[in-house]
Amino acid sequence: MEIVRVSGIAQARAGDLTFVANAKYLPQLATTRASAVILGRNGAAAPRRASKASRARCAVLRADDPYSTFARAVALFAQAPPSATGVDALSAVAADASLGVDVSIGPFATIGAGASVGARTIVYSNAVIGPGVRIGEDCVIHSQVAIRDRVVVGNRVILHDGVVVGSDGFGFARQKDGTHLKIPQHADVVIEDDVEIGANSTIDRPAVGETRIKAGTKIDNLVHIAHGVSIGRRSLLAAQVGIAGSTIIGDDVTMAGQSGVAGHVSVGDGALVGAKSAVLQSVDAGAFVTGIPAIDHAGWRKASLTFGRLPVFRKRIAQLERRIAKLEEKLARWQTRKKGR
Amino acid sequence: MEIVRVSGIAQARAGDLTFVANAKYLPQLATTRASAVILGRNGAAAPRRASKASRARCAVLRADDPYSTFARAVALFAQAPPSATGVDALSAVAADASLGVDVSIGPFATIGAGASVGARTIVYSNAVIGPGVRIGEDCVIHSQVAIRDRVVVGNRVILHDGVVVGSDGFGFARQKDGTHLKIPQHADVVIEDDVEIGANSTIDRPAVGETRIKAGTKIDNLVHIAHGVSIGRRSLLAAQVGIAGSTIIGDDVTMAGQSGVAGHVSVGDGALVGAKSAVLQSVDAGAFVTGIPAIDHAGWRKASLTFGRLPVFRKRIAQLERRIAKLEEKLARWQTRKKGR
Amino acid sequence: MEIVRVSGIAQARAGDLTFVANAKYLPQLATTRASAVILGRNGAAAPRRASKASRARCAVLRADDPYSTFARAVALFAQAPPSATGVDALSAVAADASLGVDVSIGPFATIGAGASVGARTIVYSNAVIGPGVRIGEDCVIHSQVAIRDRVVVGNRVILHDGVVVGSDGFGFARQKDGTHLKIPQHADVVIEDDVEIGANSTIDRPAVGETRIKAGTKIDNLVHIAHGVSIGRRSLLAAQVGIAGSTIIGDDVTMAGQSGVAGHVSVGDGALVGAKSAVLQSVDAGAFVTGIPAIDHAGWRKASLTFGRLPVFRKRIAQLERRIAKLEEKLARWQTRKKGR
Repeated sequence: MEIVRVSGIAQARAGDLTFVANAKYLPQLATTRASAVILGRNGAAAPRRASKASRARCAVLRADDPYSTFARAVALFAQAPPSATGVDALSAVAADASLGVDVSIGPFATIGAGASVGARTIVYSNAVIGPGVRIGEDCVIHSQVAIRDRVVVGNRVILHDGVVVGSDGFGFARQKDGTHLKIPQHADVVIEDDVEIGANSTIDRPAVGETRIKAGTKIDNLVHIAHGVSIGRRSLLAAQVGIAGSTIIGDDVTMAGQSGVAGHVSVGDGALVGAKSAVLQSVDAGAFVTGIPAIDHAGWRKASLTFGRLPVFRKRIAQLERRIAKLEEKLARWQTRKKGR
Repeated sequence: MEIVRVSGIAQARAGDLTFVANAKYLPQLATTRASAVILGRNGAAAPRRASKASRARCAVLRADDPYSTFARAVALFAQAPPSATGVDALSAVAADASLGVDVSIGPFATIGAGASVGARTIVYSNAVIGPGVRIGEDCVIHSQVAIRDRVVVGNRVILHDGVVVGSDGFGFARQKDGTHLKIPQHADVVIEDDVEIGANSTIDRPAVGETRIKAGTKIDNLVHIAHGVSIGRRSLLAAQVGIAGSTIIGDDVTMAGQSGVAGHVSVGDGALVGAKSAVLQSVDAGAFVTGIPAIDHAGWRKASLTFGRLPVFRKRIAQLERRIAKLEEKLARWQTRKKGR
Repeated sequence: MEIVRVSGIAQARAGDLTFVANAKYLPQLATTRASAVILGRNGAAAPRRASKASRARCAVLRADDPYSTFARAVALFAQAPPSATGVDALSAVAADASLGVDVSIGPFATIGAGASVGARTIVYSNAVIGPGVRIGEDCVIHSQVAIRDRVVVGNRVILHDGVVVGSDGFGFARQKDGTHLKIPQHADVVIEDDVEIGANSTIDRPAVGETRIKAGTKIDNLVHIAHGVSIGRRSLLAAQVGIAGSTIIGDDVTMAGQSGVAGHVSVGDGALVGAKSAVLQSVDAGAFVTGIPAIDHAGWRKASLTFGRLPVFRKRIAQLERRIAKLEEKLARWQTRKKGR
């Protein structure tokens, strides 16, 4: 049978290729209607259920890394969006802007004075590239993106719809009368090669120094990166994460959804921050922290499981106090009596 | 007196109609300057304060459901925004796009190749409708919205300003060298009838399968819906909620503000998730859960009230240990003495 | 040596002016390559390390408020973005809109029917100003902003890219069949003088009454302000904060990142809300609260430090119970024996 589509295991039907990289989905192998499935070679993805896996009635493709193999299969079959071609007549490209070969600019997109856009980069409808911005080659700038003046963007960068890069950092000096003096935020913002930033995320510009997202880092939707932050290489920031000002995130860091890091601290290389956590102090390389404030994950996990029993602890402590008071009283009575003897 | 406006109870003045659906505001009945007020019929909305309610000096309208009656009154008096009319000459509508009768397209809006827009739908200024998108009838697509290629939108859908539908899901396969291989995200996104999505919320597209928001569900501002998520019918997601990838949310679910759900789990029909909670495991239909991680709401509430007393517990436990050590020592002494006798 | 740039203390090089307002950075004075540094006059910013500060080999400028002095220095050297000039031929300004002197309107910006824009205000590319909107003088409206119909904006207001003002509040009345009746949200939204709102933040419009952000308040990125909320004067709301409907925030309030406030409560003047907190009940003026739910900060801090020891407490309580049971048993035995004697 010819493979005509790539699908999730639950929705797959005849003619579909699917995969299992997460052991949780292995039991579905027995019932999937897919024609072929990609599985881990050594059963590492399926430790105990190898027997079930072998029961799969469809063709089985073994791979060292089934998820990556699946990724490549998806790419083969993917119905990529038709890419824009050429510079739309309804765009506004400054006379002194510089466009590389095969650049595409959609309708109502703006390229500011002195900006440069590298070869084969696509700028979709209604994106705004500010004056003096430098964008590398093979980038994809989606609709409704705003890149403010003088921001530098590397090669193969993907900015999803609504991303804002280079907006003013939140920096004010409180005056004696309680008003807030704005500290101008006009320093540098650099997005390095192979970075991807999700829809409606925002990357602020600092007053001095720079905000930098290093090569290969991937950022999900609605993430906030404050002024003067540096994010290392190949880090992953899930949706709705927030990083406060001047904080340094290392290489290969993973931050789970809705977590946050306070300002002026650092998160070491390879660290892992659990979902919804608040990192208030610097975290060592390789650490796995969770909680508000974030502590060692294993300790947090145990404490969390205990949390719901707090009211029971309260009762047990009160009961212990009553029992011990009774014993103390009894012993005191005996002592008095003995002395009386 | 003629009713000329609908107001909140605190701001109301002569000529205004107001309402009380929340018992908290009942005491204000004695002082409101409104000319008329909508109240619950049986005092259900005002259990103990019926006496005060009857003291209202203005006209009283009794309704089974005062909030719905108020909603209809607001609609009667509302100053609706002037709707756009016709296709603006400054819009970019692809030659092969299909527009229903009485469609309105604002200036600088883009309708991509092969897209279709149903009758009476309004597309406001600067919205971007991608190629192959299908939008139903009587929808309102506000400014700065981005709908990516091939997304399907039902009838009577409202997308507020800055909403992004169909951006790439956050899917990468980590390679041996630590880099992240992008898994192309080109599968389907469906927004069913009567869905409303708040400003700057984002709905991602999956690699395989679909992301689906079912009929009648309402989503507030800055909400993140990841790739492959399914949200049931008539659910309510308050602002800044985040749903991670492949998770299934049932019908009639309510998620309070800033709560989140992990990936690959399910939240049963009618479940309620408290504000700021993190649902890390599947939740049964009808459950009410709160906390990080989310547990039964009643248990969480009791435990939360106890949380602030943790340092006191610590002291009491230490004190108990000292007291019991003293008793143990005393008894051991007595025992020795007795044996000595 | 001539000062040519303003820098952070770590990045500064010869020719740079830097500052220390946060004692944490004082040790860097010994190693900075800056040519001059701004320090607090009385060492208040550097309580114990005055000796180290005096060791700075560069020129030292003493100031009462080094952060404000730094702000002014930054403004002197800042490379401000080239401002737009005049009304771009590619904008869509309604025939009956009113523009003050020296207003700038970027390409693909829309000014709706009957709207007015005050003198010297800049509206950047692709911003959408709805019909009937009134904007004051000297405002900066960045790209991709959407201001819905009839919103009122004061003077010297800055709205960063992607901000939405006047989107519909999240107001529905649940019907007997489980569907949600939309309550039209067409009342007023007012942004007073000197307010600044960060990228992609959203300010909703109520059904009745108004949503109001009072003078001098500064709001960071991705913040959600629901319908009918009032934020007082000079308050600071950090990134990803959310305020639910009808809540009143006082003057001079500070809300740290990712915190939230429930609906229909109030936060008193000068209150401080810790990062990631959830304010579920009204907070007094001057209070400092943290946690979920938010409690007094000092109490929360102590309890948080204890949280990780919950599993230890559990063990210690169980151990106490065993020890006391043993004592009780022993005493009971003795008592029996004595009686037996």
